[in-house]
Amino acid sequence: MSAEPDVLEEVTPELVRRVEAALAEDGIAEVEALLAGLSAAGQASILEQVADPERERLVELLKRDLDPETLVELDEEVRETVLDQLDSKDIAAAAREMETDDAAAILEELPEAERREVLAELPARDRAEIESALAYEEDTAGRLMQRSLVKVPDGWTVGEVIDHCREATDLPDDVYDIFVVDPSGRLKGSVPLGRMLRTKRPVPILDIVDPDIPSVPTSAGQEEVAHLFRDKNLVSCPVVDERGRLQGVIMVDDVVDVIDEEAEEDLLKMGGVGHDDMHAAPVRTARQRALWLLVNLATAILASLVIGQFEHSIEKIVALAVLMPIVASMGGNAGTQTVTVAVRALAMGELTAANALRFVAKEATVGGLNGIIFALIMGTAVVAWYGDWRLGAVIGAALVCNLIAAALAGALIPLTLKRAGVDPAVSSTVFLTTVTDVIGFLAFLGLATAFLL
Amino acid sequence: MSAEPDVLEEVTPELVRRVEAALAEDGIAEVEALLAGLSAAGQASILEQVADPERERLVELLKRDLDPETLVELDEEVRETVLDQLDSKDIAAAAREMETDDAAAILEELPEAERREVLAELPARDRAEIESALAYEEDTAGRLMQRSLVKVPDGWTVGEVIDHCREATDLPDDVYDIFVVDPSGRLKGSVPLGRMLRTKRPVPILDIVDPDIPSVPTSAGQEEVAHLFRDKNLVSCPVVDERGRLQGVIMVDDVVDVIDEEAEEDLLKMGGVGHDDMHAAPVRTARQRALWLLVNLATAILASLVIGQFEHSIEKIVALAVLMPIVASMGGNAGTQTVTVAVRALAMGELTAANALRFVAKEATVGGLNGIIFALIMGTAVVAWYGDWRLGAVIGAALVCNLIAAALAGALIPLTLKRAGVDPAVSSTVFLTTVTDVIGFLAFLGLATAFLL
Repeated sequence: MSAEPDVLEEVTPELVRRVEAALAEDGIAEVEALLAGLSAAGQASILEQVADPERERLVELLKRDLDPETLVELDEEVRETVLDQLDSKDIAAAAREMETDDAAAILEELPEAERREVLAELPARDRAEIESALAYEEDTAGRLMQRSLVKVPDGWTVGEVIDHCREATDLPDDVYDIFVVDPSGRLKGSVPLGRMLRTKRPVPILDIVDPDIPSVPTSAGQEEVAHLFRDKNLVSCPVVDERGRLQGVIMVDDVVDVIDEEAEEDLLKMGGVGHDDMHAAPVRTARQRALWLLVNLATAILASLVIGQFEHSIEKIVALAVLMPIVASMGGNAGTQTVTVAVRALAMGELTAANALRFVAKEATVGGLNGIIFALIMGTAVVAWYGDWRLGAVIGAALVCNLIAAALAGALIPLTLKRAGVDPAVSSTVFLTTVTDVIGFLAFLGLATAFLL
Repeated sequence: MSAEPDVLEEVTPELVRRVEAALAEDGIAEVEALLAGLSAAGQASILEQVADPERERLVELLKRDLDPETLVELDEEVRETVLDQLDSKDIAAAAREMETDDAAAILEELPEAERREVLAELPARDRAEIESALAYEEDTAGRLMQRSLVKVPDGWTVGEVIDHCREATDLPDDVYDIFVVDPSGRLKGSVPLGRMLRTKRPVPILDIVDPDIPSVPTSAGQEEVAHLFRDKNLVSCPVVDERGRLQGVIMVDDVVDVIDEEAEEDLLKMGGVGHDDMHAAPVRTARQRALWLLVNLATAILASLVIGQFEHSIEKIVALAVLMPIVASMGGNAGTQTVTVAVRALAMGELTAANALRFVAKEATVGGLNGIIFALIMGTAVVAWYGDWRLGAVIGAALVCNLIAAALAGALIPLTLKRAGVDPAVSSTVFLTTVTDVIGFLAFLGLATAFLL
């Protein structure tokens, strides 16, 4: 047995190109040969990378025996186009083989009418499970959990539990914990499979149960669930209803997806792009991004209006126009550093009301220190460049002002947004550049007007 | 049993304040009462949030019976200061109770001499395990793996394996798979515990083994390991040496830490800050960030030099100075959108040589589309503002140029850095703003000089 390649090695650019070429020439047998032995993630990766007309052909080809996991692994935007090509029967066949949470996530993407068609194609039991999953709000524990788990009454012995496991034929392989419930279905604790294996058969299961295991209510948000898994290093976590009755279990691999999703969202939001950006059509991408650019345009125009107030000074000393972008840009970059740290620390729960004041004070200190350093550097450079020490002093003073303003804004904006219930990742940078541009131009041009004219 | 609170609910700002107040007044009993019942992650969170002199006192207090998990959970920067306060005996006592990978990670942070002292305090077996973990390079599978696992010869029956598990007293609870090895120690496959439980005792273990399980070599990078866990939805993954012999196992909770770490690094690098930024002292933070600001200063000066070439034009039409930051800023923002998508897609393996050209073409299209939209908006605004349709045409043309340039740069810079083996998250934005500032000022001032003077 050798190390299995991961998807990055499995799906080489070369392979994608060969698949595309074979599809273009309708070489069905060749495509099948190329795809044979690929994992579901690998197939999904191919589907994501293949260009549009070829993708359609590829879906036609894979349709007959599409691995349901491939659908699960697909990027949302690409999945939408693939689902468009499948009829309700195909989708229902795939959904039957998925875990409930995955099937629910995919069915939710369908238009109402088609979803009902697909549900009608499913056997009653699967339909009921998926429908009850869909009843929970998106991005909650209820939606994330799977229903297949081993739950045993608290009166059983280890032997009875083992026999039960032996008899149940539909138990999934990825069972790691046995859950113990009281007669009304309330969770009493769990027993790791390994511990049960090491225990003698006559021992009551209650003797070896962990009563203090973490659990989450069905209504818990997925971010909260991810925090819990992280903090407690969990592999699985039971989900209970408002009366403490066991409803399902969340497995860590679903949480890994959540963590990836949240990290991606933070990163993409800070860059002003949507999460489906990569695979969306150009016009759609342009429209989505235009909104963000429009907000930034407003900021830029505001900064322009500030400059406009000093046209007279610029006319007299044109060097001001040459130097002013430096002051604004240094403020913007320093402020972005602070915002980045604040956004991440807020997301990880490291920045809270308890240390917020200390954080702001530290950032202001850092801003002041770097303000002085760059005031000295730029001041000297300007004196050397223009031979005017007063111009050097003005740019130095403006830099100190703007870097302190940037630090304060960079720390206070995310904190304020968070307190207001707005995601600080989304809009912090717009507000920040507004502050650093306005203060940057105002400080530099204002000081210049006061002292140089 | 009720849902256990996660660390964010457990460690309220109020609690941190009360701990700080109690520490300030040396109310040892009160501090102990406040901390009683906190999880290790909760204790770590308190240590991270408490201010500096109080933190020292808190460590003194916790020292006597410090939960080793608390050390593991601590942020690196804070952990360093805590370790400074502990002597080798304390650290050795804590290390003994940790998993090998955690102990190795902590020992590595110690100065050489102290590390040797701590190792000397450890029992021979623990020492040997930690030393062999330290022999692997940082951030590799060898370092990530733990050594405690269940491995059985391929000739055994299910019954023999179960008896072996029953007899082994030092088996950890978090065993989920039994690994089967041949006489020379090479991995032959694994059996999920749940499956073994459902199989009759006389069945040979080889009959129920999964032979095609993924495994990684000890030298695999942690990012690669994280990809594998993601793609295959793994809970654990065996680690083998170059001859295929089983060396250890990586558990998913360690991978969750890696995923968090990588996501954090990407985000922080794009913002130009180090990973220990939040908890570092102001002077240290200022020094680390100054480097990044210095690089940005060079970019800003370059842009200034471009403006300097057009002093004459600005003197004649001062409106140019007022409007030019808008062109540069729109380019910078549009380019950042492209860079963000590219960096994330590169990291997730969605952007490869196979679709790079298509990505660049799409981005250029998006840039062109949004360039035209904002050219119309800004052109109209300028005509209304200054009553000069030629100035409006110039700013419009400059915006189209710069947004296309931003799209091309935003796509090509990360791709080129990746190909050159440089992390695209780190330096893409600097190169990008250099391009968007230079092209922005050049296009706008150049076109203005050509057509308006």
